[in-house]
Amino acid sequence: MAREGEEEEVVLLSFWSSPFALRAKIALAEKGVRHEIREENLSDKSHLLLRMNPVHKKIPVLIHNGKPVCESSLIVQYIDEVWNQESPLLPSDPYERAQVRFWVDLVDKKVYMAARTVWFIKGEHEDGAKEELMEVLKLLESELGEKAYFGGDRLGYLDVSFFPYYLSIHQLENTVESRLGGEMEANLPKLEGWMKRCMLRESVSSVLPDLNKLSDYIRQLRKKRLDEQA
Amino acid sequence: MAREGEEEEVVLLSFWSSPFALRAKIALAEKGVRHEIREENLSDKSHLLLRMNPVHKKIPVLIHNGKPVCESSLIVQYIDEVWNQESPLLPSDPYERAQVRFWVDLVDKKVYMAARTVWFIKGEHEDGAKEELMEVLKLLESELGEKAYFGGDRLGYLDVSFFPYYLSIHQLENTVESRLGGEMEANLPKLEGWMKRCMLRESVSSVLPDLNKLSDYIRQLRKKRLDEQA
Repeated sequence: MAREGEEEEVVLLSFWSSPFALRAKIALAEKGVRHEIREENLSDKSHLLLRMNPVHKKIPVLIHNGKPVCESSLIVQYIDEVWNQESPLLPSDPYERAQVRFWVDLVDKKVYMAARTVWFIKGEHEDGAKEELMEVLKLLESELGEKAYFGGDRLGYLDVSFFPYYLSIHQLENTVESRLGGEMEANLPKLEGWMKRCMLRESVSSVLPDLNKLSDYIRQLRKKRLDEQA
Repeated sequence: MAREGEEEEVVLLSFWSSPFALRAKIALAEKGVRHEIREENLSDKSHLLLRMNPVHKKIPVLIHNGKPVCESSLIVQYIDEVWNQESPLLPSDPYERAQVRFWVDLVDKKVYMAARTVWFIKGEHEDGAKEELMEVLKLLESELGEKAYFGGDRLGYLDVSFFPYYLSIHQLENTVESRLGGEMEANLPKLEGWMKRCMLRESVSSVLPDLNKLSDYIRQLRKKRLDEQA
């Protein structure tokens, strides 16, 4: 971290529609960290991206004073640890911290892959993956309970990590093709309210992609993926 | 955490051969945390396990004063944060912490699954998975470099997390069936030396399963898995 008075350089290598990049953007906005966003062309990745993330070659990468941090959930933890004066995302108690990490780990392991299978893989979407997705979402509905956010009365690590995925699922369900057939509204009323609350927050609304553009993009991406499997 | 003078109760729900449980055992040994190990029967899981880890229903679970922590890499982080006076496993600098988390994340995402595919899945072991496994192991070889341990001159988070997997791969390669055909010795001399150094440490040697018994067990498990695919 730069000393007081030194210039901090914070660059995010990003792609506008990526839910992973959105995690980092929300965390930076919550903390009020001044940063520059560099949009990548994912079919012709920059030398900078390949140099900064040689193992995975994926966005997002947070470059802080020239040094890269990769993997979205690790970027969010890093942001929270470095800019720790403002809006803590992880709780200070080790036990509570282990619990919130457990939920983010579950989101990372189950939600993204299940949603991908439900909407992007031919032939598999009718059975297992749909059930698995709803099962995990119901666990998260119950974990949220009566709280405004998973973090209590403000956004926490799980909110920042889960919201971008939930938004993508919402876009897929409501604007691309309904696979869950109204189950989100019926079975996940708390998550639905939570999503809307998140979207009203300045730290989220200021970094959200254009939702119409996002729907179009997801629609095209889905068509391409399904065609490739034909 | 219990206050001074209060009794701390630390229980690990475990299975003797599990590399995931071994992570927790090494971390507890490094810290000198007094604990009780409860061996689970994985084909007839205890009510306690199902109650403490209702989402995944898997060992290891660390139960600290009645409260569960699940997922081996989160358990190790928790142990490090709670018993933080003794043998720190994660570095104190946020950037270094992000880097070591990156490597543990890579081990979790790539090493276990690739090794599982190489030895336990029929027909797929000859090509992609073998290459992927060797590629990740070479990255780790290079990350270790000239250091005694990933953590420098003592065990760190990555050592504790990676050693149990590397030991399993070693057992598979040398006592079950060679798939990598001498590539470990030839291409991973530093990791080979590191593994031996780890095994000489009290915190590791005191919690290692019997290696002959482990080989027999892995051999039987593998036969069972391959027969199921026949």
